[in-house]
Amino acid sequence: MVRAIVSQLLTAGVLLLGETTAYNQRRYIDNSSGTPEVIIPSASSYNGLNLVPQMGWNNWNAFHCDVNESLLLSTAQQMVDLGLRDLGYNYIVLDDCWSIGRNSSGYLVENPVKFPSGIKAIADQIHDLGMKFGMYSSAGVFTCGRYPGSLGFEQQDADLWASWDVDYLKYDNCFNQGQSGTPKLSFDRYDVMSKALNATGRDIVYSMCNWGNDDPYDWAYTIANSGRMSGDIYDSFNRPDDRCPCTEAIGCAWPGFHCSVMNILNKMPAITSRTMSGYFNDMDMLEIGNGGQSDSEYVVHFTMWAMNSSPLLIGTNIGTLSPANLAIYSNPAIIALNQDTSAGAAVRKWRYLVDPDETGQGEISLWTRTMANGDTVIALLNAANTTMTMNATMNDIFFDQRTAGAYRAPPELSQTWDVYDLWANRMSEEEAGTIINGTTAEISGNSTTRYNATATSYSKGIKDNSTALLGVQVGSIAPSGTFSAEIARHSVGVYRLRAQPTEGARNKDEL
Amino acid sequence: MVRAIVSQLLTAGVLLLGETTAYNQRRYIDNSSGTPEVIIPSASSYNGLNLVPQMGWNNWNAFHCDVNESLLLSTAQQMVDLGLRDLGYNYIVLDDCWSIGRNSSGYLVENPVKFPSGIKAIADQIHDLGMKFGMYSSAGVFTCGRYPGSLGFEQQDADLWASWDVDYLKYDNCFNQGQSGTPKLSFDRYDVMSKALNATGRDIVYSMCNWGNDDPYDWAYTIANSGRMSGDIYDSFNRPDDRCPCTEAIGCAWPGFHCSVMNILNKMPAITSRTMSGYFNDMDMLEIGNGGQSDSEYVVHFTMWAMNSSPLLIGTNIGTLSPANLAIYSNPAIIALNQDTSAGAAVRKWRYLVDPDETGQGEISLWTRTMANGDTVIALLNAANTTMTMNATMNDIFFDQRTAGAYRAPPELSQTWDVYDLWANRMSEEEAGTIINGTTAEISGNSTTRYNATATSYSKGIKDNSTALLGVQVGSIAPSGTFSAEIARHSVGVYRLRAQPTEGARNKDEL
Amino acid sequence: MVRAIVSQLLTAGVLLLGETTAYNQRRYIDNSSGTPEVIIPSASSYNGLNLVPQMGWNNWNAFHCDVNESLLLSTAQQMVDLGLRDLGYNYIVLDDCWSIGRNSSGYLVENPVKFPSGIKAIADQIHDLGMKFGMYSSAGVFTCGRYPGSLGFEQQDADLWASWDVDYLKYDNCFNQGQSGTPKLSFDRYDVMSKALNATGRDIVYSMCNWGNDDPYDWAYTIANSGRMSGDIYDSFNRPDDRCPCTEAIGCAWPGFHCSVMNILNKMPAITSRTMSGYFNDMDMLEIGNGGQSDSEYVVHFTMWAMNSSPLLIGTNIGTLSPANLAIYSNPAIIALNQDTSAGAAVRKWRYLVDPDETGQGEISLWTRTMANGDTVIALLNAANTTMTMNATMNDIFFDQRTAGAYRAPPELSQTWDVYDLWANRMSEEEAGTIINGTTAEISGNSTTRYNATATSYSKGIKDNSTALLGVQVGSIAPSGTFSAEIARHSVGVYRLRAQPTEGARNKDEL
Amino acid sequence: MVRAIVSQLLTAGVLLLGETTAYNQRRYIDNSSGTPEVIIPSASSYNGLNLVPQMGWNNWNAFHCDVNESLLLSTAQQMVDLGLRDLGYNYIVLDDCWSIGRNSSGYLVENPVKFPSGIKAIADQIHDLGMKFGMYSSAGVFTCGRYPGSLGFEQQDADLWASWDVDYLKYDNCFNQGQSGTPKLSFDRYDVMSKALNATGRDIVYSMCNWGNDDPYDWAYTIANSGRMSGDIYDSFNRPDDRCPCTEAIGCAWPGFHCSVMNILNKMPAITSRTMSGYFNDMDMLEIGNGGQSDSEYVVHFTMWAMNSSPLLIGTNIGTLSPANLAIYSNPAIIALNQDTSAGAAVRKWRYLVDPDETGQGEISLWTRTMANGDTVIALLNAANTTMTMNATMNDIFFDQRTAGAYRAPPELSQTWDVYDLWANRMSEEEAGTIINGTTAEISGNSTTRYNATATSYSKGIKDNSTALLGVQVGSIAPSGTFSAEIARHSVGVYRLRAQPTEGARNKDEL
Repeated sequence: MVRAIVSQLLTAGVLLLGETTAYNQRRYIDNSSGTPEVIIPSASSYNGLNLVPQMGWNNWNAFHCDVNESLLLSTAQQMVDLGLRDLGYNYIVLDDCWSIGRNSSGYLVENPVKFPSGIKAIADQIHDLGMKFGMYSSAGVFTCGRYPGSLGFEQQDADLWASWDVDYLKYDNCFNQGQSGTPKLSFDRYDVMSKALNATGRDIVYSMCNWGNDDPYDWAYTIANSGRMSGDIYDSFNRPDDRCPCTEAIGCAWPGFHCSVMNILNKMPAITSRTMSGYFNDMDMLEIGNGGQSDSEYVVHFTMWAMNSSPLLIGTNIGTLSPANLAIYSNPAIIALNQDTSAGAAVRKWRYLVDPDETGQGEISLWTRTMANGDTVIALLNAANTTMTMNATMNDIFFDQRTAGAYRAPPELSQTWDVYDLWANRMSEEEAGTIINGTTAEISGNSTTRYNATATSYSKGIKDNSTALLGVQVGSIAPSGTFSAEIARHSVGVYRLRAQPTEGARNKDEL
Repeated sequence: MVRAIVSQLLTAGVLLLGETTAYNQRRYIDNSSGTPEVIIPSASSYNGLNLVPQMGWNNWNAFHCDVNESLLLSTAQQMVDLGLRDLGYNYIVLDDCWSIGRNSSGYLVENPVKFPSGIKAIADQIHDLGMKFGMYSSAGVFTCGRYPGSLGFEQQDADLWASWDVDYLKYDNCFNQGQSGTPKLSFDRYDVMSKALNATGRDIVYSMCNWGNDDPYDWAYTIANSGRMSGDIYDSFNRPDDRCPCTEAIGCAWPGFHCSVMNILNKMPAITSRTMSGYFNDMDMLEIGNGGQSDSEYVVHFTMWAMNSSPLLIGTNIGTLSPANLAIYSNPAIIALNQDTSAGAAVRKWRYLVDPDETGQGEISLWTRTMANGDTVIALLNAANTTMTMNATMNDIFFDQRTAGAYRAPPELSQTWDVYDLWANRMSEEEAGTIINGTTAEISGNSTTRYNATATSYSKGIKDNSTALLGVQVGSIAPSGTFSAEIARHSVGVYRLRAQPTEGARNKDEL
Repeated sequence: MVRAIVSQLLTAGVLLLGETTAYNQRRYIDNSSGTPEVIIPSASSYNGLNLVPQMGWNNWNAFHCDVNESLLLSTAQQMVDLGLRDLGYNYIVLDDCWSIGRNSSGYLVENPVKFPSGIKAIADQIHDLGMKFGMYSSAGVFTCGRYPGSLGFEQQDADLWASWDVDYLKYDNCFNQGQSGTPKLSFDRYDVMSKALNATGRDIVYSMCNWGNDDPYDWAYTIANSGRMSGDIYDSFNRPDDRCPCTEAIGCAWPGFHCSVMNILNKMPAITSRTMSGYFNDMDMLEIGNGGQSDSEYVVHFTMWAMNSSPLLIGTNIGTLSPANLAIYSNPAIIALNQDTSAGAAVRKWRYLVDPDETGQGEISLWTRTMANGDTVIALLNAANTTMTMNATMNDIFFDQRTAGAYRAPPELSQTWDVYDLWANRMSEEEAGTIINGTTAEISGNSTTRYNATATSYSKGIKDNSTALLGVQVGSIAPSGTFSAEIARHSVGVYRLRAQPTEGARNKDEL
Repeated sequence: MVRAIVSQLLTAGVLLLGETTAYNQRRYIDNSSGTPEVIIPSASSYNGLNLVPQMGWNNWNAFHCDVNESLLLSTAQQMVDLGLRDLGYNYIVLDDCWSIGRNSSGYLVENPVKFPSGIKAIADQIHDLGMKFGMYSSAGVFTCGRYPGSLGFEQQDADLWASWDVDYLKYDNCFNQGQSGTPKLSFDRYDVMSKALNATGRDIVYSMCNWGNDDPYDWAYTIANSGRMSGDIYDSFNRPDDRCPCTEAIGCAWPGFHCSVMNILNKMPAITSRTMSGYFNDMDMLEIGNGGQSDSEYVVHFTMWAMNSSPLLIGTNIGTLSPANLAIYSNPAIIALNQDTSAGAAVRKWRYLVDPDETGQGEISLWTRTMANGDTVIALLNAANTTMTMNATMNDIFFDQRTAGAYRAPPELSQTWDVYDLWANRMSEEEAGTIINGTTAEISGNSTTRYNATATSYSKGIKDNSTALLGVQVGSIAPSGTFSAEIARHSVGVYRLRAQPTEGARNKDEL
């Protein structure tokens, strides 16, 4: 029996890489055929859920407390109609301000003016659309909007949500009664809800939102499915704001809010190893569509969130989405990075502070990530004030392989890599406009711009060389070579590198 | 029943803004007519008190331990006579050094030499003047002056104060037996007194004074009405002092004392969101009148405390107050900012380090705040060494609106705003002199310099366009425009911006 | 009864100054004549001991573990002979390495080879010389020298020391089993020994030595008589050393050792307020005589330790003391600063980083201190690389008075102050030589260089204008004036300022 | 009886130096002949093991999880054949990924595919080769590779390992459920396993691997035999990497990984005093042979690890070891530093940041260490970008002696020291090649390149002036003299200084 299971594991190609970096995606194996002689090591996800980052929509960034039943339902329908659901955005998350208090039995009561049909009915209708439904509370005595929080009511609240068929909980950190200051204090507080959700018996994704306080990157992965790693985002590319005082995630005692895209992004490199299948460092909800940034800045925002396996929660009004913004949210080649089963974060290989803009900020950087199929993705990020010619050398791209402590030379360095531009096939505003006005055609299998992940998973699409996921080949890099590109101010170039087939190369199956 | 209450809430214009920033001013609603089916979310004040910052007088800064019955009573009478009570300064707070120890039953005993009539009698007389009475203790084994502290005697002491009809407790942090180091340790210690005060059944404002240790901005609002956020102030505009080593509030392990006005002010921007109705970040007592700063520096001190909703406790000898200083303490247009029901802190939109003076310090900054009626107030602060021409652009003033993540353009940017100088109507020294020597006339309804808030609340005064609260119009700012002003060295320009009435504008009721 | 006690207090001139700065020297008053109706506030010393800083000798710096009975006894005798005892150096402290373990009853056993007469007999002989005897242990499982520590044996060890008539405990921090990390963890550990010492019923000065870990400046004064505020000193004036990584006392997680005189001194200004009668910030034992610094550097070391009310423990071999070094240790004008009943630390009024020497360090600074009789002492410290003309203005000297928040002008600014150089009467090497070789005369009452504090307390000597305590008048400073002096490289000028008698001046009694 | 034991101690030359720096190597003395009247102070090792740093091989750096029975056994055999065992590398440590889970009794089950003979049989065979066997787990719910961890199973797991005759445990820090944040939280967690290992009754070296979190240098020596003091090493000489954010060991909340040789080395100077016999600061496993650094960089790596008494665990594939790399691992003159019974770390006397290379890093430094026999070893480290002429003055080398607070001049300064270059006798690639291909001769007693420590301990070899341990004399330094050497870019010169015999010199016995 033992050997059978082990063989099964080994056959499945279990790989365990790096003392503190990699965790495989094993699942619990139910040893139902006989005495449970051996318990298989835990799945990478603490509850078996969220093996790739959650995607969806949350009302907060655009609507704050101004939310109601019809907004939720019309948004869900629009996401179906715009093809967003089939790109993977399948959670509708209702944020704060939904209750009117607790009843005499201690149960939370939904606001009957905002939600006349009741929450349960809303969940049902969202489920009927093939989507999932999320809700919000806080690990404190109040929510951030000063509605009743769940501290001390964890099981009762979890039971209520489960009875409403809720699929997802965003769990905030306001009014926490000072129960923080060490990892242990925060862990213990958030663990109560983790256990309560599990005890309901319902699959509920647990999205922790303690803003990175007490360094959850180091302990939340055994109790949650994602964890915010910064103070709240605001719709600015890189402007520093007094209310977001930290520039590093580690040890940030005051995460704050009004954190720019670049501020949040630059907190990621130190904690990159703590992103794993089943637990993702949450860089906060997307601002694309809210008007505070340029188109290319929004492209950076979307790209770097995807590259780092952040949850992708649309944070704007779907009903007023512009064609340009829909084209960003809908780039399947970028979403495929986010939903890659490697479930890892990108590594910033270098960063130089140069050429500041009017906010006093300026920098360029190279980010890389290895995908599940052996492809490597690189991002050349220009957050400086002018166009830059940026270079990525083979040595930089594969620096981790060079210094991995292996006793043999990494094969990547001796391969030639084809380079595909992942934004080359961005949907035109014209095409996006036809989707918005309902005059578009069905998605064809060989579309270069659109993709239906409900029909064909991203994994299969990548394996099948779907053009919508691969972008456009723009060159190749020989061993010891360098890839160069002109990158405009506040823009990013994102490229998927695929090794040309060679004798004994790792990737021979894919091309 | 549920719906009735909810309707009532919605009719009351409940607004919930910002995940971590805004809290509304809902009050407990006593559901006395029938079964309490639903509990309404908590009031923004944990005990229903102090919805706008407390104002009054405290003996410490000027008199330290040299305090007695006649000082308290004569000061109270003078505050009535000088019109200070009717401007809102209605707490008389007796600081440290009032006891001679505990009696054999463990109760504190007031010093019979200093207070021959007894504390209770003093409280009675202060109440008879239409004012309230505050006292002092420490969450330690001694007070800072080494009198008995309340640690371990919380309920007994609270009961005693309640029996004396005390309305207010300043609760210090000296001799705390090392019960600090995490938010939890400090929260737990201060929470004991919070509960003890509540248990007395008397309304007692709880003014926490732990100097910002263990970041109370993040936990004290559920147990207190205000909380000191810095080490002790001293009467200097901006001189750094070794005994006040922190320049940031967050994570300050050693708040110290001898903190200058600018030191304390510059600790506010990061924690601005933690000011809310019922809980205020206390920047410490006012030094105006104590002789260490110039007139314009005292104006900065008073203005920025008011702008940031700090409690306003006069910290000088009322009996020797000069006309110039009375004119600062008595500017109703500035006090109206402090007592605005928005109960928020100002936001520092930008700050530049420039032009240092002999202390090595020099900076200019722009601060803004949105008022309850939709007005916006801006402060152009020149803490540099020479006169500066300072600019506030519409984009800077309304930057938060621009990046709020809303899906529609903020209407503020397309409005024209009239600008009122809030120091333009400062009372002359001649007029102040007549108040001090008792030869002044009653306050007339259309005085431009004086105001009686006992007779007419600041809210109503603002609504009624009271000239004493509005200052003098000095211009207007068109959409995309810029407001400029010459600001002298160590001075501040403070302006109330009111939108000109337009079709569908938010503020149509006010003008 | 109450009034009588209070009157007594007031008659005694009780003054309570400064919210966080001053503590008076009240003692417990035993209300033995009748019912204890009122308990008087606690004495400033938690156990009534050490109202001024302890002085004496400790073997560690010079002898480390190489210690024995004859060393202790011969040193004690020499200190009597050299007049050091009568200058106030009256504790003989035996440091680490005195035990050979615990016996089967758990009691520590002294090393019978080192101490053949037994510790008790040594204590007796030291007492016979009119001196007191101190010992050493650690709040850990071992001492720093890896002998048994007292953690878990506190009462048993305290009882043993009391049975040996020990008067003083130095209590170290080695091998503390990780019981640190918050003030509470350290407080709780050190408090056990504090209570154990009290429970013995014997007066034992408790000298805490946790190197400033967990900021004891903020909590140790209610449980100890002094507390080390830095890592261990080494015999260097200002050389930075990797093993002493902190430059600030606050929040120093790794105090280390090999801390220079200037490193330790510069950690004091932030915590100066936490020095008080009965509890002193211990800057570590004196290195004068150990050969690592120049004569003028040793003068700085001695002066600044005295100015800051640090305990003064001689840390060299008394038997080989040079005349020059004896002259430093024996300057009664400097010792009188240390033993002043004001029991305060000096305030660093300014510091400028200038003119570095070969270690990369260079600075000048002005320190001031107010004495119990109203005199003010200033130190002009030149730790730069060349001779400097240094100035102290009246405004700088009395800056604290100017900004104390008082409502009247400080009288100090309008007085003329006579200036006395406190090193002007330093004993000559010739005179010191006669003391060392036993050919000196008795101390005469009008000696300018020598003093017997056993015969006449420093307080009385100051009151009587003893020339040995006053130094030599070198000028005076008029209102708004400036005092200037040439100060050589790595030297200090120390001056006692005494107000000239004026109508109504504070100091009329003294001159 | 007491006296006999004490005499024995004193005869043994027990020396206790330095308040926080030195700990002697006393062992428990079993007082079996009669009543245990006195308990001798504890041994310097908490469990009597690892009095000098452990040496051996660990599979992680080169093989990660790709490990199995034949790798372990063939590696052990090769280490015997290559002479590595007899140089002291005698632990074979199996790292992560060896289990398949827990069985129904809760016991861990080894992977039967990887280890078909079972772990116990592997241990037996390794023992038969005269070597010892180590294993791995984590103080968390999972290992870093997500296999079951030992948190909550400490005794059960320790018992299992003991039953398998395991000699060594590497105990990691992954998935620790947030049980960190203060020294106490980490101490308590790691102490459980310490006690469990002791309770097995088997001698098991306890190698703590919490990456320096919560500053174990300050508490782990009473519960463990070594403790990692940094995040994981990677095979780079000095390149900064975002994933290793700390540059200081103290207070590093996020140790990370991808720490370069120079990053780790530069974390040592502050904590140098916490290296002691029985507990070593572990700088992580050696990368020599893995291809990421130049030969001279690997020499620096090996030298500085040895100088600082880090455990020396070979982290490469023994089967593919090159002659050059074998020559580094096999330098007995360097290993003798590591295995010196002084068991101390080196002191960095000075460091200058100069001449950066392409990573932006550049520095030179002088390190010194005093050996058990009185020799002094110095290392002149050139981590700058070009060759440097480097100097070590007598004053710098013996600065600690100069400032030790002794009352007499240190004799070292008046001696002449002969200088031996410890890399001068590095084995040639030719000779190393003969060892690898099995054509080498036995080690002769007077080999200058090879050494058998199994036959002759390093202590005896040093005492006997073995040429293989002494290197080649390259000069001598007179009193007040200076030693100079040309040191190439990214290289180190290491020299053993031995005092020439003089009248009354300390080292007269050795030469």
